[in-house]
Amino acid sequence: MGGDHAPGQIVAGAIRASEELDAEILLVGDRQQIQDALQHHAHTPNLEIVEADGAIAMHEGVTELRRKPQASINVAMDLVKQNRADAVVSAGHSGAAMASATLRLGRIRGIDRPAIGAVFPTLLAGKSVIILDVGANVDCRPKYLEQFALMGTIYSQYVMGVEEPKVGLLNIGEESSKGNDLALRTYEILEANKQIPFIGNAEGRDVLSGRFDVIVCDGFVGNVLLKFAEAVGEILLQIIREELPQGWRGQVGSAILKPNLKKLKQRVDHAEHGGALLFGVEGVCIISHGSSQAPSIFNAIRLAKEAIDNQVIERIRANNAANQEITSVSDATANSQSGS
Amino acid sequence: MGGDHAPGQIVAGAIRASEELDAEILLVGDRQQIQDALQHHAHTPNLEIVEADGAIAMHEGVTELRRKPQASINVAMDLVKQNRADAVVSAGHSGAAMASATLRLGRIRGIDRPAIGAVFPTLLAGKSVIILDVGANVDCRPKYLEQFALMGTIYSQYVMGVEEPKVGLLNIGEESSKGNDLALRTYEILEANKQIPFIGNAEGRDVLSGRFDVIVCDGFVGNVLLKFAEAVGEILLQIIREELPQGWRGQVGSAILKPNLKKLKQRVDHAEHGGALLFGVEGVCIISHGSSQAPSIFNAIRLAKEAIDNQVIERIRANNAANQEITSVSDATANSQSGS
Repeated sequence: MGGDHAPGQIVAGAIRASEELDAEILLVGDRQQIQDALQHHAHTPNLEIVEADGAIAMHEGVTELRRKPQASINVAMDLVKQNRADAVVSAGHSGAAMASATLRLGRIRGIDRPAIGAVFPTLLAGKSVIILDVGANVDCRPKYLEQFALMGTIYSQYVMGVEEPKVGLLNIGEESSKGNDLALRTYEILEANKQIPFIGNAEGRDVLSGRFDVIVCDGFVGNVLLKFAEAVGEILLQIIREELPQGWRGQVGSAILKPNLKKLKQRVDHAEHGGALLFGVEGVCIISHGSSQAPSIFNAIRLAKEAIDNQVIERIRANNAANQEITSVSDATANSQSGS
Repeated sequence: MGGDHAPGQIVAGAIRASEELDAEILLVGDRQQIQDALQHHAHTPNLEIVEADGAIAMHEGVTELRRKPQASINVAMDLVKQNRADAVVSAGHSGAAMASATLRLGRIRGIDRPAIGAVFPTLLAGKSVIILDVGANVDCRPKYLEQFALMGTIYSQYVMGVEEPKVGLLNIGEESSKGNDLALRTYEILEANKQIPFIGNAEGRDVLSGRFDVIVCDGFVGNVLLKFAEAVGEILLQIIREELPQGWRGQVGSAILKPNLKKLKQRVDHAEHGGALLFGVEGVCIISHGSSQAPSIFNAIRLAKEAIDNQVIERIRANNAANQEITSVSDATANSQSGS
């Protein structure tokens, strides 16, 4: 029910995903509206409708989640909680999706704050970088960023297929002495954690360079960067159109360029990635853009499927359980030593 | 003496500025090296060399400024201090330039922290936006951002010629309830200050939209954004080259596009702007990119001249003096009231 083009475009994207991705889709929301949307399609594969009562509107606060236990986002999260679904994709109120996921699914043990990870294309063809957090936590502590780095590393390895991911800390200079208070303290922690393949600071110019596979930052700077990057794609296309040659030369130039503009758009348009992942909760959640059309929803579902197929949640959970054991053992050692 | 291409490119840019801008240029540094660079030019207009002893290298700390009182950046600042020059342009160690300006020229009364302001192009042709701070202060208090907003407003009005500048606070959402601790507290202060034409939060996507004339933020997020934006220009051009049609269609397409690529580069390339301004010190200082070539240096000198001709320093000083008087009066009133 969420997003500027719901339920029509959401349903259209879901149908395509159900046909092309071998995914079973549950459409959660108002039965009548969803059925109306389904009627526009000749082929409607096995899509199941799960009835919900209302939705969280974009202007509403997340406190509405408690007042509307049967709102579509809550019902969708419950399906994951009850093992009736493996993932939730939402193009609605992103704050509500995060809060509902945290409340209904709970955090993975050892994770203090869930984070949103967004995948950016890089200058190196075929290589992407995941940046987290891009908006869930505006004020962070160093240990949150440490957890983001661990989750990002797992995602890079098992979903993006990077054998030896390189982790960077978003900062204003290369040297360890650079940065604000958060960055300075986080640098030390990342460097000391042997589980994190930390290679140093990533400046703004390094984000899209392909030098890093995972970049961690607080959700404030990450969100500013994400929205700036999204807008740049649009701006780029507009500038190219404006600067295209005019007159007869323009006619020829445009005819030749047109097919390439589409390819160009695919490379720079962030919407092509479908959505961002919510890391650190007990289930796969994809947060799509409110402006998502069918292709974005299709890509979001593909993203969800990749996370499921590669057992991202299980791996984060296992990793943290192992960590906790190490911590417990060293705590015990420390205690027994201090007691002796 | 500063920057990757000093002194050759610096001298070349200075000669052009001296010819085209009706500016008198003092070249500060090693006399022999500067003279050698001057010999490559047929016309060397009236450029004066001011001897300095050494320079701050890029890898050195700003503490070197005290150990090298005659380093080129210190000598240049002293020229402004002694009214022998109106402005300093440096492509060297930017931290050293900021520190030297603060130590040698001093802060304008009422300004707690100098800030670096960078001018970005926007989607609206001919319209720019100034963003500050982009790197001088990584950890900020709300009152610093308030001062940045006041200085940016003056610059927008008197140098960029915007009659009614619109000021925004860089944030992660439009609503006043959005943001990290700094943004939430700054929002209230900006809204309450009647001297600041504050119109609300600017998200990452709004930066280049042309909706705002001045955007304030802390130097950490500003610096990440600046360096990201600078890199995007380069990336854009590379992607266009890669996606240009191949074969005979490519030949035709490229021939038609080539003159436009140059125009495009001018619109997106941040280097075209020459440099950033250091606001809040008692003199005009332009901080240029270390990679600056002659055209950037020329543009940086033009930027300096615009700031001088439009009396930016005097206006900031006058504005703050007026403010202090208001504050003193209200303090006095408050004191007499509390005393009664």
